[in-house]
Amino acid sequence: MTYQAPVREMQFYLNAVLGATRLAGTERFAEATPDMTEAILAEAGRMSEEVLAPLNRAGDEHPARLENGVVRTSPGFIDGYRAIAEGGWVGMAADPEHGGLGLPMVLTACVNEMMSSSCLALSLNPLMTQGQIEALEHHASEALQTLYLPKLISGEWTGTMNLTEPQAGSDVGALRSKAEPKGDGTYRVSGQKIYISWGDHDMAENVCHLVLARLPDGVPGTKGISLFLVPKYLPTEEGKPGVANSLKVISLEHKMGLHGSPTAVMEYDGATGWLVGPPHGGMAAMFTMMNNARLGVGVQGLAQAEAAYQKALAYALERKQGRVPVEGGTGTILDHADVRRMLMTMKALTSAVRAICLDTAFSLDMARATEGDEAARWAARGAFLTPIAKGFGTDMGCHVAELGVQVHGGMGFIEETGAAQFYRDVRVTAIYEGTNGIQAMDLVARKLMDGGVAAREMLAEIAATAASDAVLGKDLDAAKDALSETLDWMLAAPELNARFAGAGPFLRAFGLTLGGHYLLKAALAEGDANRMALARFMIRQLLPQVSALCAAAREGADDLYALDADALAS
Amino acid sequence: MTYQAPVREMQFYLNAVLGATRLAGTERFAEATPDMTEAILAEAGRMSEEVLAPLNRAGDEHPARLENGVVRTSPGFIDGYRAIAEGGWVGMAADPEHGGLGLPMVLTACVNEMMSSSCLALSLNPLMTQGQIEALEHHASEALQTLYLPKLISGEWTGTMNLTEPQAGSDVGALRSKAEPKGDGTYRVSGQKIYISWGDHDMAENVCHLVLARLPDGVPGTKGISLFLVPKYLPTEEGKPGVANSLKVISLEHKMGLHGSPTAVMEYDGATGWLVGPPHGGMAAMFTMMNNARLGVGVQGLAQAEAAYQKALAYALERKQGRVPVEGGTGTILDHADVRRMLMTMKALTSAVRAICLDTAFSLDMARATEGDEAARWAARGAFLTPIAKGFGTDMGCHVAELGVQVHGGMGFIEETGAAQFYRDVRVTAIYEGTNGIQAMDLVARKLMDGGVAAREMLAEIAATAASDAVLGKDLDAAKDALSETLDWMLAAPELNARFAGAGPFLRAFGLTLGGHYLLKAALAEGDANRMALARFMIRQLLPQVSALCAAAREGADDLYALDADALAS
Repeated sequence: MTYQAPVREMQFYLNAVLGATRLAGTERFAEATPDMTEAILAEAGRMSEEVLAPLNRAGDEHPARLENGVVRTSPGFIDGYRAIAEGGWVGMAADPEHGGLGLPMVLTACVNEMMSSSCLALSLNPLMTQGQIEALEHHASEALQTLYLPKLISGEWTGTMNLTEPQAGSDVGALRSKAEPKGDGTYRVSGQKIYISWGDHDMAENVCHLVLARLPDGVPGTKGISLFLVPKYLPTEEGKPGVANSLKVISLEHKMGLHGSPTAVMEYDGATGWLVGPPHGGMAAMFTMMNNARLGVGVQGLAQAEAAYQKALAYALERKQGRVPVEGGTGTILDHADVRRMLMTMKALTSAVRAICLDTAFSLDMARATEGDEAARWAARGAFLTPIAKGFGTDMGCHVAELGVQVHGGMGFIEETGAAQFYRDVRVTAIYEGTNGIQAMDLVARKLMDGGVAAREMLAEIAATAASDAVLGKDLDAAKDALSETLDWMLAAPELNARFAGAGPFLRAFGLTLGGHYLLKAALAEGDANRMALARFMIRQLLPQVSALCAAAREGADDLYALDADALAS
Repeated sequence: MTYQAPVREMQFYLNAVLGATRLAGTERFAEATPDMTEAILAEAGRMSEEVLAPLNRAGDEHPARLENGVVRTSPGFIDGYRAIAEGGWVGMAADPEHGGLGLPMVLTACVNEMMSSSCLALSLNPLMTQGQIEALEHHASEALQTLYLPKLISGEWTGTMNLTEPQAGSDVGALRSKAEPKGDGTYRVSGQKIYISWGDHDMAENVCHLVLARLPDGVPGTKGISLFLVPKYLPTEEGKPGVANSLKVISLEHKMGLHGSPTAVMEYDGATGWLVGPPHGGMAAMFTMMNNARLGVGVQGLAQAEAAYQKALAYALERKQGRVPVEGGTGTILDHADVRRMLMTMKALTSAVRAICLDTAFSLDMARATEGDEAARWAARGAFLTPIAKGFGTDMGCHVAELGVQVHGGMGFIEETGAAQFYRDVRVTAIYEGTNGIQAMDLVARKLMDGGVAAREMLAEIAATAASDAVLGKDLDAAKDALSETLDWMLAAPELNARFAGAGPFLRAFGLTLGGHYLLKAALAEGDANRMALARFMIRQLLPQVSALCAAAREGADDLYALDADALAS
């Protein structure tokens, strides 16, 4: 079986569970009616199934390669990318003023899920461009916007994000790249950047790099960092790619997965760049791009979970083996309780992550479509959910892909089956765009700076769902109470590092509880027995972990530091 | 940093925690004194560090390949194998009558851990031979023993295990391979077998296959299966490899990991074989081999956990990055609570799995060194622990290897780092020698056929440990109580499939609780503050999962079967 785009499921969540129909009631997104949404998702689903999914194995087996300084992409990627660009999928959320469709982010999330399920490596390219578009829309000068946005939105040019340097990974402030004013309004950018996804390729006529670097008067640390737009080819006045800039790909990484996505080491050697945003204001601009990308990466985790689940279910339904332990069984391994548990876990977690990701995107859309206090509340909701979407979404993506391998038994370890590729590909999503450890720290530090207001609003929503079901409500409420108690503990903790110590378990506990909440909401929305059975499995069998995770989250930092380096090594 | 064999840690567990010194008090293992043990482990440790560890990357990068019907192994493997064979490590537990050292299995487990940490792919070869030696010792005729055992024990010849066929994986009874008597006491064996680890290679002069096949009068299912010894070259009367047998390697699998270990599809085309054990008694003989191999695979999980932990800790200690969030920090990522949590989890779980595996091996040794009721009790203890050693050991091996990737951040996804290889290699251990789902079913079905006697004896041991510590005893006891309650539920369950439904969570819960028990025992044995801190982390932060897992284990089968195939797919 090949990938089948879950368009109906997305629509159900959008319309019946998350109330995303409210978007069509706003002026900004008046066009995003259920009919329009349906047409868009169906079209993106078709492309994903028919054009992109067939490229996934080729990307794995024939990685992008560097030939004489030029990156050659995997077989078929040029055509696949063209389909994405010409379909208008890169700039679907972008401002119509520069050629975008101005659609809600929640639809981009759905489309990105389908593209990423089909071919994660290729879909990472437009995801990067989407982040760049948003950063330029918010922070670039009008001249830069006029020149670059139409090209990026149409997909003629693509974008990258250059943060990491060998000595500066999660600690961006340690970067050494430099930018010097040339006196003509442009800058001379120099430095080496690593882990640059799609740093070069042969699918579009120009590659535009957003590069973090320090101006001569930039102070050490993150406060002295500025953002520069550094194109591979300097645009002519007519907006055509002109002279080659002083930058190059030094090498491509040899990675465990995502082979179709070239990960470049980039060298900028006095390359011409343009300042984006104010001097020393690079981090703010980068955060715009990163927040978008973090949600996008959470969606990648979701996408791999969905694809891994579909493949595992198809295998379970065709693999005849074993005495049938249940009456009325199918004669396949689906009859086995162990296989059933794996598939139910995969399905429940995939649905949970989808709901979290879509609700995050929806909140950010509502924040842009409303004003004043209402907008602020939506923005805070979206901001609070973002690290959960990224951290929980990708952790569960990895977990579901692992279960997918296990469902296949010995076949799971054989590369031709494809289950192993999901397992290898998805692993990076827990690392890039801020490791999941960073996401957890963000959740318990920055996202609790409001004194827990946004967190408590989510807990209140969960409580409301719990109150509406007499059977499962009690269990969902117990999870919510454990979270609430832990939240209080976090807010009262005398030291920030005590919060950090429990951040990982807290984020996971929050994600699981939200999963129970959304799945129960979905079941109640339709009064559907199958949805209720899935919610029941999630709440009765997975949510008990919440109190265990919360107990660990409240233990504080001391035990983590009890062993010194020697003791850890002995 | 390269691999450092944890010889001192093994000795500590053997002598101070598990009481394996009792072995030297038996007649059978009188030679296994602490001094002898120390010398043996030190020697195996040196070989693992110096000879085997340097081969691990080469095995990954240059997989074994099939050339004109002959398997060529990875660079250096021939020399590495020679060191193993000449060191006497293949047959260290084998009967001295045929050239073995007659040492306890618990020492083999220690040596196998070190060889597997260094180079999992290569070490799988002697593990297979060890299983074959044990099967022949128990079931083969004296003539076969006399001819084959000295060759296998010396490592001149190696062994394989041929169970799986394309339509018969976990369901061995579905196999179609046939054996016909030739009238001269030998048999003509025909059929195709898949997933044959080390099915052929260039490291030894003969490869001996133990093949499950059905005699003409064999009934369908497992009860009609017999076991045959089918050598690559028919031995001459002088015991030299003679005429080539009618068997061949059709192809090698393209696997996610363990590239250095050739996984063959074997074709037997009327190959000459000798019956091992009685006609139709193949499964019993195979189980001898499999039980040994299951513990051996649990040790592989342990080995990869240990190696992944060592690599991650070394990286954390050298990677300078980020503002130091703690006073007196090291200036490396080890200062970060999140990294600390990962490393503490890795260390605690690795130690837990080592204790479980070694205690399993020790129990099986005591069963062979004692008699009557005492022997039966030890055997039951070892049998009960075996699926936990395999299932929990390899699940935790996978989990620890995944954390190892995460500790490395972006570097973890780059193949040259080596963390990814552990993550890829270890994955198969959760699948082969009976998937971990099969292990869990074994635990709650076959291993509870004594009415829970063996399980309750383990719980009593845990309770005794809990009673000896006023601080952590209460938490350990709570985990034990949750297990005890679940055990009662399992034994009272009206249907076996209700047990199977909860088998996976139950096995994991048992493994975690045993981990808490052993780590606390270790801390109390030495009165060591570092060991107590590790036990505290395990019990306070990981053991809360036990009650969550037990809750899921007691939910029964109904929820797992609530969705039919259509509902699962929608």
